[in-house]
Amino acid sequence: MISRETTVAEYFLDRLASVGVDHLFGVPGDYNLAFLDKVMENSRITWVGNANELGAAYAADGYARVRGMGALLTTCGVGELSAMNGVAGSYAEYVPVVHLTTGPSTAMETAGASVHHTAGDGDFERFARAQLSVSVTTATITPANAAREIDRVLATALREKRPVYLRMASDVALSRMPARAGPSPLAERAFPVDSASLERFADDAAKKLADAHSAAVLADFLVDRFGARGQLDTLLRGCQLPFATLSMGKTVADETLPSYVGVYSGAYSDPRTQQAVEDADVLIRAGVRLADTTSGGFSHRIEIDRGIDLQPASAFIDGAEYPGVPLGLALTALGAVLATHFPVDPVTCAVGTSATEPAEPAEPAEVTARQRHQPLRQSYLWPRVARSVQEGQIVVAEQGTSFFGLCTQPFPANSRFIGQPLWASIGYSLPAMLGAQLASPHDRCLLAIGDGAAQMTMQELGTLGRYDLTPIILLVNNSGYTVERAINGPHAAYNDIAPWNWQQLPAALGVGDALCLSAATPNELDRALSAAEAAPDRLVLLEVHTDPLDLPELLSDLAAGLSKRNTAG
Amino acid sequence: MISRETTVAEYFLDRLASVGVDHLFGVPGDYNLAFLDKVMENSRITWVGNANELGAAYAADGYARVRGMGALLTTCGVGELSAMNGVAGSYAEYVPVVHLTTGPSTAMETAGASVHHTAGDGDFERFARAQLSVSVTTATITPANAAREIDRVLATALREKRPVYLRMASDVALSRMPARAGPSPLAERAFPVDSASLERFADDAAKKLADAHSAAVLADFLVDRFGARGQLDTLLRGCQLPFATLSMGKTVADETLPSYVGVYSGAYSDPRTQQAVEDADVLIRAGVRLADTTSGGFSHRIEIDRGIDLQPASAFIDGAEYPGVPLGLALTALGAVLATHFPVDPVTCAVGTSATEPAEPAEPAEVTARQRHQPLRQSYLWPRVARSVQEGQIVVAEQGTSFFGLCTQPFPANSRFIGQPLWASIGYSLPAMLGAQLASPHDRCLLAIGDGAAQMTMQELGTLGRYDLTPIILLVNNSGYTVERAINGPHAAYNDIAPWNWQQLPAALGVGDALCLSAATPNELDRALSAAEAAPDRLVLLEVHTDPLDLPELLSDLAAGLSKRNTAG
Repeated sequence: MISRETTVAEYFLDRLASVGVDHLFGVPGDYNLAFLDKVMENSRITWVGNANELGAAYAADGYARVRGMGALLTTCGVGELSAMNGVAGSYAEYVPVVHLTTGPSTAMETAGASVHHTAGDGDFERFARAQLSVSVTTATITPANAAREIDRVLATALREKRPVYLRMASDVALSRMPARAGPSPLAERAFPVDSASLERFADDAAKKLADAHSAAVLADFLVDRFGARGQLDTLLRGCQLPFATLSMGKTVADETLPSYVGVYSGAYSDPRTQQAVEDADVLIRAGVRLADTTSGGFSHRIEIDRGIDLQPASAFIDGAEYPGVPLGLALTALGAVLATHFPVDPVTCAVGTSATEPAEPAEPAEVTARQRHQPLRQSYLWPRVARSVQEGQIVVAEQGTSFFGLCTQPFPANSRFIGQPLWASIGYSLPAMLGAQLASPHDRCLLAIGDGAAQMTMQELGTLGRYDLTPIILLVNNSGYTVERAINGPHAAYNDIAPWNWQQLPAALGVGDALCLSAATPNELDRALSAAEAAPDRLVLLEVHTDPLDLPELLSDLAAGLSKRNTAG
Repeated sequence: MISRETTVAEYFLDRLASVGVDHLFGVPGDYNLAFLDKVMENSRITWVGNANELGAAYAADGYARVRGMGALLTTCGVGELSAMNGVAGSYAEYVPVVHLTTGPSTAMETAGASVHHTAGDGDFERFARAQLSVSVTTATITPANAAREIDRVLATALREKRPVYLRMASDVALSRMPARAGPSPLAERAFPVDSASLERFADDAAKKLADAHSAAVLADFLVDRFGARGQLDTLLRGCQLPFATLSMGKTVADETLPSYVGVYSGAYSDPRTQQAVEDADVLIRAGVRLADTTSGGFSHRIEIDRGIDLQPASAFIDGAEYPGVPLGLALTALGAVLATHFPVDPVTCAVGTSATEPAEPAEPAEVTARQRHQPLRQSYLWPRVARSVQEGQIVVAEQGTSFFGLCTQPFPANSRFIGQPLWASIGYSLPAMLGAQLASPHDRCLLAIGDGAAQMTMQELGTLGRYDLTPIILLVNNSGYTVERAINGPHAAYNDIAPWNWQQLPAALGVGDALCLSAATPNELDRALSAAEAAPDRLVLLEVHTDPLDLPELLSDLAAGLSKRNTAG
């Protein structure tokens, strides 16, 4: 056990690197420049300078969804508040982002000085209080508490899968502290396990399933967040049960398995999906959290206190809690039970009961030779785009027509679908894709985003160019906020946006070698997608033109319900 | 007194209009669309759809600085948090912005439903709590409390000159309520006056000044915010005393008066300014709040508990408070005293003591015929730009080289200088100028902004085009965050930015008829400024190229101090 000295900044960066974070997103500000010098010296952490802090926060979120954790550096006040909506999205959707903000020096804070980036009133905790609303824990780092508090906060983020907030005075970054050695101080990063409770859970689940005529699995995003994809995969392959996901959990399991029955969205689901989920004698829910946008506007027919419900820290059978049974262990225990009660057919070795063929992206709506040269419709667009998705590809979809159009299309194995249906902050997906692309540099990301959303955070296109990233960006130009036109004001001026020239944008933002394509018909779309695939070393901006009122079916159904609820009181 | 029915949305909009607000900035979101229908119907309030909420918040701030109040509409969660840094700037710098956010319906809130734009946990006050950090008061509007609470909140904003936050459920916007009639319910909008205290103040000030050999006036931004420009002007014209402002209060008084001695910045002031302020027997401070960036990094030599200090609600003499003496009344009372003790010279009728000539913008640094074709320096740039400022023009300067370069240059009468030296959020100035331009449509705004700042909020250039606004934008292209290079890391990669092609940007953002100019030498700058003035009906983007390490002198001085304080601990 060798103990040596380090600085607070280096300690923090080394701890981040030790849990797999090797990029730090943010914007320089005069209170974090000394810290940034330490980042530049660090061999394991790469600085990514975003155009603004909201973009940085979204990027850290996208990165964390792929890597398991992301990190964000801002300057106090101006920077941390600009990032706040992005961090709030991470909070709502269980994404562990470590947000560090550096502020005025200890001496200035002690003196209560009226320094810039504060309200000038000597209250240096004003904005830290605001951050409590979007963080699962917070800390003020001093040289004396740095080792303990940095470790506590990082462990909390890893355990709870939610953002944490640290602030420190500018001079603290360079303060000396003992380098901690010995056993991992991040040991508290998992939920506690109660073996007796786990055993009771397995026994009671077996009894419950023994009496059941049928069962089904409904999986959601918490399986991804709490690192239980492997355990879910083993469970699904080891038994013969139909499974669906919610849209928020799309790609949490292999959608090419014959037992996959689609994305469940309450009354707006495909009838086969709805039947499998709602008619099962025992519904096994893995990491499920229902929201208005993912439950078909609460049209789901799932009884919350019936069936088997696996949550991050506990399992439930018919509403009774089994504490100390975390999601991954519960899936493994349940997998063994299911393999006995719903065994894989020994003759066919085929997995699944209700489907005989693996699910495939729907054929694009039938298009006649003449229609191939007529205006592109969303009914053709999304199945066609889904068919272009490659094994292992990361697809990021903006929370408008893109998400609702793509989420119902089955994806290939090992692909990932990233969206934000609960927080639903438009503009999220472009910077989130930047983060995901840096987290997975060898897979080319595909982004689908509408024009209204893209205007919110478009400066990060310049950041993509600056870091030589070459994703495909499918930009749906439908002249405004189509998702809102569907809810209220289809022709209202407030749903219009400034008419940008998207073809000129990459060059204007410094991405001179981007491949700019556009498509207004099915034929043009087919050709453009081929051209995009044939240019893997260039950033592609593929602008597709659709009608302002053209919607994917799921969104059309949902929007009618949302509209009614907003004004009903 | 006729009482009739109205809706909560209409009541709110009418109240806004009654205090001079006729534009509402924001972004549509599905929870505010019903409210927006009422905005579109309203004949007195014009909706301005921004590209994102941070831009909307900055625009509302710029509008409020010109009009006395601004208003912002967001959707709950995502929208209100994106706006937060902008609103925080309004809080820090005493700008009354009314921020209304609309959220899920009353029924959804009562049910604690997991709806989008929330954290999904049934906590509908989570983000309202965060807003407490940037609002002087907040309210949750219901049909029952709407008249009382809307009036209370608006009156508070008008009195305190700080942002207020209201939230309402989506259905509340359309709820019926009685239309209030009769005496103005916004009567509580001014600070209370204590006549006896005011009389004592005038008497004691007279005694204080009778013993004084010299006096001087130092004015700052609170004179502007608390509506006391007229009273200050009368005071300055009615006596013979030198006056200076802080940079944050620049243009709060007529800089062409002979008594104007410049902008005071502590040890970094012009010697004449420093002497007038620091050597005065009695220093009269009007609406002064010292900050690090406006006091020369606290190098000021002003004793806080000496002299006469006029604050928004109270006056002070040698540290003793006279409560109930608001700024405007105090200036008027003091003006009468000063006219007696420091009368205007009856022979010359000239105002002022220390200057014989009105201040003028410094001549641009002497430039030889050969240098006119060599790289442009900031020492030539800012005096030259200041000389182009017209009477009555609004100049918005970004908190980098632009602000520090322009603030030391005297401006013509009735012009206004808008910057953000305390909150200092880069990216502020472009949307703020949009707001100021809409608030004052007949005066052509001039914006000066650096490239790093402009990347933060550049989408609002598209908004300028969408609303046919034709300001002049001076874009300082110096390849990154020069204000930060001055503080730390002059050559550090973290101070670099993506290399945008500014000349192409207006067209890409839909401003097809913009006049794009560029200047890299003094000669080119002169020509470009003439061309800009000759094209009043077009938006002008004038890109000037300066060296990444070239700074105005004041910033160079300040940055050295900031750097030292950040790491000193």
